[in-house]
Amino acid sequence: MAKAIAAARNGITHTWTNPVVGAVIVKNNQLLATGYHHRFGDMHAEINALSHLQDINDARGATMYVTLEPCSHYGKTPPCAKRLIEVGIKRVVIGQQDPNPLVSGHGIAILKAAGIAVTVLNKTADLNVAYTFFYQHHRPLVTLKYATSMDGKLNDGSKTRTLLTGKPAYHDSQTLRLHQQAILIGETTLTVDDPQLTVRDTTPDFPPIRIILVNNAADLNRNATVFQSDAPLWILCRQSTEQQKWPDFVSVFTDPTWAPQTIMQLLYEQGVQSLLIEGGAHTQAAFSTAGLVDRLVVYVAPLILGGSGLPAIWGTGCKQPLPFDLTATTQLGNDTRFDLRRQ
Amino acid sequence: MAKAIAAARNGITHTWTNPVVGAVIVKNNQLLATGYHHRFGDMHAEINALSHLQDINDARGATMYVTLEPCSHYGKTPPCAKRLIEVGIKRVVIGQQDPNPLVSGHGIAILKAAGIAVTVLNKTADLNVAYTFFYQHHRPLVTLKYATSMDGKLNDGSKTRTLLTGKPAYHDSQTLRLHQQAILIGETTLTVDDPQLTVRDTTPDFPPIRIILVNNAADLNRNATVFQSDAPLWILCRQSTEQQKWPDFVSVFTDPTWAPQTIMQLLYEQGVQSLLIEGGAHTQAAFSTAGLVDRLVVYVAPLILGGSGLPAIWGTGCKQPLPFDLTATTQLGNDTRFDLRRQ
Repeated sequence: MAKAIAAARNGITHTWTNPVVGAVIVKNNQLLATGYHHRFGDMHAEINALSHLQDINDARGATMYVTLEPCSHYGKTPPCAKRLIEVGIKRVVIGQQDPNPLVSGHGIAILKAAGIAVTVLNKTADLNVAYTFFYQHHRPLVTLKYATSMDGKLNDGSKTRTLLTGKPAYHDSQTLRLHQQAILIGETTLTVDDPQLTVRDTTPDFPPIRIILVNNAADLNRNATVFQSDAPLWILCRQSTEQQKWPDFVSVFTDPTWAPQTIMQLLYEQGVQSLLIEGGAHTQAAFSTAGLVDRLVVYVAPLILGGSGLPAIWGTGCKQPLPFDLTATTQLGNDTRFDLRRQ
Repeated sequence: MAKAIAAARNGITHTWTNPVVGAVIVKNNQLLATGYHHRFGDMHAEINALSHLQDINDARGATMYVTLEPCSHYGKTPPCAKRLIEVGIKRVVIGQQDPNPLVSGHGIAILKAAGIAVTVLNKTADLNVAYTFFYQHHRPLVTLKYATSMDGKLNDGSKTRTLLTGKPAYHDSQTLRLHQQAILIGETTLTVDDPQLTVRDTTPDFPPIRIILVNNAADLNRNATVFQSDAPLWILCRQSTEQQKWPDFVSVFTDPTWAPQTIMQLLYEQGVQSLLIEGGAHTQAAFSTAGLVDRLVVYVAPLILGGSGLPAIWGTGCKQPLPFDLTATTQLGNDTRFDLRRQ
C-alpha cells in the first residue's frame, strides 16, 4: 500500500475535484505494475496500473492494492470495478472506502459479488482530505490563512497594505493556494490590497476559483488587478445594478443575505471541495464566529504593529474560544508558519 | 575562559543587581582553582577562586581568567584588583570590561600599573545582559511578555481573565519572572486578573519588585492578592489620598505624569536593571509606542478568541512597525514561545 500511496501523490494538484489515487498490481510477491490518476479526466489509477502490465493476462490471479475504492459508475471513464473483474484480479486491498455516495460501497459490492476478496484498510483518507471532508460534511473544507505581527495585527490600521512577511512565506502561501479549489476575500481586502488572487510560482492545471464578496457588483473597479487574469472569478454580491457585460471568466451570484453558511451552501452545490479565506479581518471574524474554520494557517512576522493596528480577526465575536490542534510549526526565513486543525 | 563562564553561571538568579562572575586560576597549564560570585554581598569570583587554592603562594606567577573586569573600589568587599596584585598574579585575561562606571577601566588600569599583563576579550557580556544594558543605556532592560490566542488576543473581551496557555507555559513564565528585578502591570490587569506577581515555583533569594500603575493609590483594594505576599510592592500612582498606613513591603511613588519614560527614570535611579511588563493591552501599547521594548516573549495558544477579543497591544498606536530579531521558538506543550530581541 505504501507504494500505491506514493504513486497517488504524483497526482496532487492535477486531479482538481477528483481524488488522487494510486494502485499497484502484485503477483507471487512480485510488483508487476504501478499506476495513478494523473489528471482530472484521465484514466483512473487502476486502469493506469493495468496499462503498465507487460501482458494484460498477468492480471489474472493478481492482487491489486489501491488507495481508494474502485469506482462503480460510468463517469468520464467506465467503472473500474468491472474492469478488475474482467481481467481476473483475484484480491483487492483498498485504502479507503470512497466517500462519494455515487461510489461508496458500490464498488466494493460489485467486486465481492464477482468473488473477488476485498480488504478495506481505512488508512489513506489523508491523501484526499478535502474530498473526503466535502462528502462527509456537505460543504468545502475551509482553511483560514493570514499573516500577522507578533501582536496579531494585519496592518498598521491605516487602510494601506502592510507587507509583514518575507519571501519564503510569500512562496509558501503560493503553494498553499495551489492546493485549493477556491480563494475568498472580502470587499475591503479587495480594495486595500488589490490582489490578483492567482497562483504565481507555477501555472496550475486548475487555477483556484477567485471569490470576492462585495455589496454591489456595479461598484467594482474594472481596472482592479483581479480583472487582469482570466482565472475563474466569482462575484458574490448583495445586489448588482451592473449594466455592462462581464468578461467570460466572471460569474455573478446575487443574494441579499450572503453569510458564511449560505456561501457554504453555494460552494457545495457547485462542487467546490476546498476554500481558502485570505482576508480581511471582518470576513475572518464572520467565518470564525460561524464555526466554519477547519484549518488555520498563520504566518507570524517578528515585529510589533502596535495599539492601533488592525487585528487579524475583528468584528463579530465568538461565543466561545475555538480550540485547535497545532499540527506543525515551520520556520520560513524570519517568519513562523503555524498549521492548526479544528478540534 | 569557558570554565570561568560555566562557573559564573552558578550565580544566576542569586546575585541580584550584582553581575554573575566566574574566575579560574591557571599555572603551568594546570587548573589550580575555580571560583564564582555566589550571591549578592558575598565575596567576588576572584577572591572565591583564590580561597580555593591549596596554598595562597600558588597564585604567584599564575594567570587568572575572569569573566568580568576585577573591581577597583571599596564596596561591600575590598577591591579585587589590589588583591590580585598582592598575591602575585602575573597575567589576567578578562572576559568583559565592567560597564559600571565605578569600575570600568579602573580595575584594568590598577592591574597594568602593577606590571600585570592584561588581555580583554569582549566576549562574556551575554552573562550579564541586563547589567550591561543598564549601565550603557541608563535604564532597565525591558522585556514585554504576554500570552495570546492565534488571533493575537489576550482574552475574549469580557473583562474576565481567560486562561489561554497550559502548564508548561505557566512554569516557563515563572522562570522568566525569576530572572527579573521588577515586574510591572497596569491597573486593569490588577483588577481583572488580581495576580500575586510573585515567583511561584521556587523561593527566589531576591524576589522581583512588583510594580503596579494606578491612578489613585487610595482606590486600591487591600484585600487584593498582591497584598497577600510581602515581596516588595511599588505603587506608582498619579495621586494618593490614602490615609491608612501601608504595610512595610509597600513603597508609594506619586507623580501626576507617570509615563513609560518617567518610569524608566525612576527605575534607573533606584538601580533596577531589568523590568518585565506583564500587561495589560494598554500598558503594553504605551511601552511599545515609547520604543521601550527591548525583549519580547510571546506565548501563543492554539485557539481563536475571535472578533471581539482584546488585542495583546491595544490603544496608543506606533508610528512605525517595530522590528525584532526572532532568537528562539520553543514548543511548550500545546503552546509556542517566541523570544525576540529589538533590532
